[in-house]
Amino acid sequence: MTNTTAPAVGIGPFSRSDLIVLIGALVLTVGAGVTAFVPSGQVVPFVLSAGAVALLASVVGRSVDQLGDRFGPGATGVLQSALGNLPELFIALFALRAGLVTVVQAALIGSILANLLLVLGLSFVVGGLKHGVQRLDSHRARETAVLMVLSVAAMLVPSLTALMHTPAEGHETTLSVITSVVLLVLFFVGLPGSLRRHRSSDAGARPGSSDEAVVREEAESEAEGPHWPLWLALGMLVASAAGAAFVSDWFVRALEPAMATFHISEAFAGLVIVAIAGNAVENVVGIQLAAQNRAEYAFSVIINSPLQIALVLAPLLVILSTTLGLTPLTLVFPPMLVVSVALAVLLAVFITFDGESTWMEGATLLGLYALIAASFWWG
Amino acid sequence: MTNTTAPAVGIGPFSRSDLIVLIGALVLTVGAGVTAFVPSGQVVPFVLSAGAVALLASVVGRSVDQLGDRFGPGATGVLQSALGNLPELFIALFALRAGLVTVVQAALIGSILANLLLVLGLSFVVGGLKHGVQRLDSHRARETAVLMVLSVAAMLVPSLTALMHTPAEGHETTLSVITSVVLLVLFFVGLPGSLRRHRSSDAGARPGSSDEAVVREEAESEAEGPHWPLWLALGMLVASAAGAAFVSDWFVRALEPAMATFHISEAFAGLVIVAIAGNAVENVVGIQLAAQNRAEYAFSVIINSPLQIALVLAPLLVILSTTLGLTPLTLVFPPMLVVSVALAVLLAVFITFDGESTWMEGATLLGLYALIAASFWWG
Amino acid sequence: MTNTTAPAVGIGPFSRSDLIVLIGALVLTVGAGVTAFVPSGQVVPFVLSAGAVALLASVVGRSVDQLGDRFGPGATGVLQSALGNLPELFIALFALRAGLVTVVQAALIGSILANLLLVLGLSFVVGGLKHGVQRLDSHRARETAVLMVLSVAAMLVPSLTALMHTPAEGHETTLSVITSVVLLVLFFVGLPGSLRRHRSSDAGARPGSSDEAVVREEAESEAEGPHWPLWLALGMLVASAAGAAFVSDWFVRALEPAMATFHISEAFAGLVIVAIAGNAVENVVGIQLAAQNRAEYAFSVIINSPLQIALVLAPLLVILSTTLGLTPLTLVFPPMLVVSVALAVLLAVFITFDGESTWMEGATLLGLYALIAASFWWG
Repeated sequence: MTNTTAPAVGIGPFSRSDLIVLIGALVLTVGAGVTAFVPSGQVVPFVLSAGAVALLASVVGRSVDQLGDRFGPGATGVLQSALGNLPELFIALFALRAGLVTVVQAALIGSILANLLLVLGLSFVVGGLKHGVQRLDSHRARETAVLMVLSVAAMLVPSLTALMHTPAEGHETTLSVITSVVLLVLFFVGLPGSLRRHRSSDAGARPGSSDEAVVREEAESEAEGPHWPLWLALGMLVASAAGAAFVSDWFVRALEPAMATFHISEAFAGLVIVAIAGNAVENVVGIQLAAQNRAEYAFSVIINSPLQIALVLAPLLVILSTTLGLTPLTLVFPPMLVVSVALAVLLAVFITFDGESTWMEGATLLGLYALIAASFWWG
Repeated sequence: MTNTTAPAVGIGPFSRSDLIVLIGALVLTVGAGVTAFVPSGQVVPFVLSAGAVALLASVVGRSVDQLGDRFGPGATGVLQSALGNLPELFIALFALRAGLVTVVQAALIGSILANLLLVLGLSFVVGGLKHGVQRLDSHRARETAVLMVLSVAAMLVPSLTALMHTPAEGHETTLSVITSVVLLVLFFVGLPGSLRRHRSSDAGARPGSSDEAVVREEAESEAEGPHWPLWLALGMLVASAAGAAFVSDWFVRALEPAMATFHISEAFAGLVIVAIAGNAVENVVGIQLAAQNRAEYAFSVIINSPLQIALVLAPLLVILSTTLGLTPLTLVFPPMLVVSVALAVLLAVFITFDGESTWMEGATLLGLYALIAASFWWG
Repeated sequence: MTNTTAPAVGIGPFSRSDLIVLIGALVLTVGAGVTAFVPSGQVVPFVLSAGAVALLASVVGRSVDQLGDRFGPGATGVLQSALGNLPELFIALFALRAGLVTVVQAALIGSILANLLLVLGLSFVVGGLKHGVQRLDSHRARETAVLMVLSVAAMLVPSLTALMHTPAEGHETTLSVITSVVLLVLFFVGLPGSLRRHRSSDAGARPGSSDEAVVREEAESEAEGPHWPLWLALGMLVASAAGAAFVSDWFVRALEPAMATFHISEAFAGLVIVAIAGNAVENVVGIQLAAQNRAEYAFSVIINSPLQIALVLAPLLVILSTTLGLTPLTLVFPPMLVVSVALAVLLAVFITFDGESTWMEGATLLGLYALIAASFWWG
């Protein structure tokens, strides 16, 4: 996001940050591809494919934004919602094909925890140390937070039922599918509203818009970056999506031997490693914004991600896993994942309603993230 | 509540809405009475008695208000608190006589869920679609919400003890009775304060005032409806209360065969059917207010109901069930009911503190209600 | 705190309240010492040592404040944090030496509950009855509340893991020690910030400052009390700390026969008796402030205490108990203690965000405290 602070210096239609991400993605993807087929130990292919996933996720996001600009803000919202989580979706699907249900469940929750504890904590620490107490007092943030807590609560109903309501035993899959349908309906029902508001100046919570997009849109309104021609945007999207599909496959293949070598449990791998790799670029963006003293935006970006996971990614995976004949994914998460995510969501809402952030709050969030991650070390 | 928007058109002391409710109540009560003794299948007596219960509840409420007006606002508060929940109390007592403890427990929690998720959700959707973002930012709403969460928390102590504290095993009844006494003491201790505030313009939370009364009082200050003479108010109260007692009996008798016919579990019947029948009129009022863009009032009415259930109805039933020799009711609710009500109360507080309501929030509340209800399908 | 309202009337360097506390502490300590060695039943030594602990805790606090004033506000913060909880630390260490782990765990949680439910409730009732609705709407209160909920959440991670995450079974001690280290690091990391803010007028949450100190500091800025010379402050600190050490020993020794005589469970003894004795003076201060219509200050004092327990006292006890070879204390609390403290912390945050306090809210908090205490009667 270097173009937000300085005039864009790039080549042709690409800004400087575009170029860095593109070249990095290309190099790492090739490297991951070579090591996926040439014997090269357990560590190198794992690290290369993790890096490639992270950068390709960013390229997909940039292509979607450029493409959306051609069709007006309405289409951007729909496209971003549909395609923004594509890389995370690919990883989860390949992991489900490999039978790694625990990894996928932990990665879904881990993605929420990483956003609400790790990234929010880092952005509070960085922002607080550089700029002192930062204000977060917008209606937009509160609305997003309330919608997030409602959506995550709905996503947790099957888990709560499985834990607490013995008569429903044996119906976990049915209830998970019903819940997924309800969540997807809420998402599609919310889209028109999110599109309408997209145009107005005081944009409210948009349940479907990708995190990076919110930032980039704002960034562009300040220092308009170069536009990609339609053919380039489309081509980049297809290429990066295809690349993400291959790289996700390699990443999942490299994950299992790496887990064995380093004695990492499935739960810890999903909760920490997969969750961070799949959100790396978004995470950097949130922290950069806090460092630029744009705490409100950082917060919106960070808190919007769990909303997307609950309303789109998790239900989509449940439905795809059953229809595609993969290992079926349910929304019945292990109890400690349920408690952790409930805690994280609750604390995030309190912080939103607090209206201010300090670096000490950030440090405590980081401590909490470290402790929850530590508790999953014993998988 | 037609007299809130148009000049009252009625006959003698009765407003138009009075007449509709009275005639409906009379017709349905007679119908329910006939089908209760003449063989008429499982469905007809159940539907008729459910409708009669709902309308008689409204007649009781109207009589109490008219009666209260004779004795000043202080007496109204006390009367409303004592008599407002009479029909729900009758249903619960007859159900306890029939040994349907699960139904009664589920109906108590279901009544809270119906208010905080279903009715609040509907009022947000209706209000939001008609009027856009609605504001809820009053001290009164916050105070009621905090008092509600505190009261429900106290009501849940026996359940939490039974679930979490094995040394207290076997003392569930003792702890339920102690809790009921504490809740009733809190209610009576809070009455004088609620009466005092009743007179001031900026009325705070009134733990004992009936939902409809809050609305009607406000409505009357705008378009004063006709007053009933004392003898009429007293007569109507006695008649409607007696009617409610009979109809509640028939409703509970019709419930069991209806449950068997449609394969409905006791928990689902209580949580959804009894809870909605017992609150039908109040619910309509809340939604009407939201449609009239009086979101603050709708919210106060809706959020006040769980407060009454926790402070009056639930503890009264515990004490009556043990003293009257019915199947004893404890406050040890099944775990999924505890989790559901905790979730609903928590979310309602977040929404209050948010200060705004959108129709998307309403839709998510409805989704959550549907999912929790679905999870109890397997009773 | 009589010097807050009237000019100090004392002898030499001692204010009137100093004298009352000193003489009381001296008398009770001597009494407790005599009855500890002379046979005198079960009740008298217990009551005398409990009273002596409470008053010596106050003398330690006063000495630390006087000492801190010599070295500037920075040192005061560090000293208060390090020494303010000394008496509670002594009691816990002696109890752990006697193998009373349940008592210590219950006392830690009980201290939080006593502050957030009992003392907060009493201060709302007293303040509300004397002054009507009191406002609590400061950023400082919100910030402290958020930091408190975050810290308590971190402290609860080992308990949640033990309850919810079977694969981590057998690693409770490891996770407790890791958690304790993280909490202490957060405390020390937060100290410089708390010192810096100490100087500014709009002082934020200070994770390490003792409760009484906050009050006394404020009090002194209004009516400057007499200062103790350095030698006196040091001498009083050493004497009162040594006294607290002895008296704590006698208190714990008297506790066991008293529990047996009155059939009090370990959990109830810790949760109610030890928790109240260890916080008695702080508690009185909070209620006095509310009675003086200084609700904001009362609230800050009361809500700061759980923060200290989570960040300093609990982790220090875990680490000392393992390094000193006492019965090891873990942060794996019994489930009902976890639920109770989670509930209390949650409700305290809601009340903070409410921005107003009424005596009815206070009464409900008292009811909740009584019910939770009652549920632990069956230990």
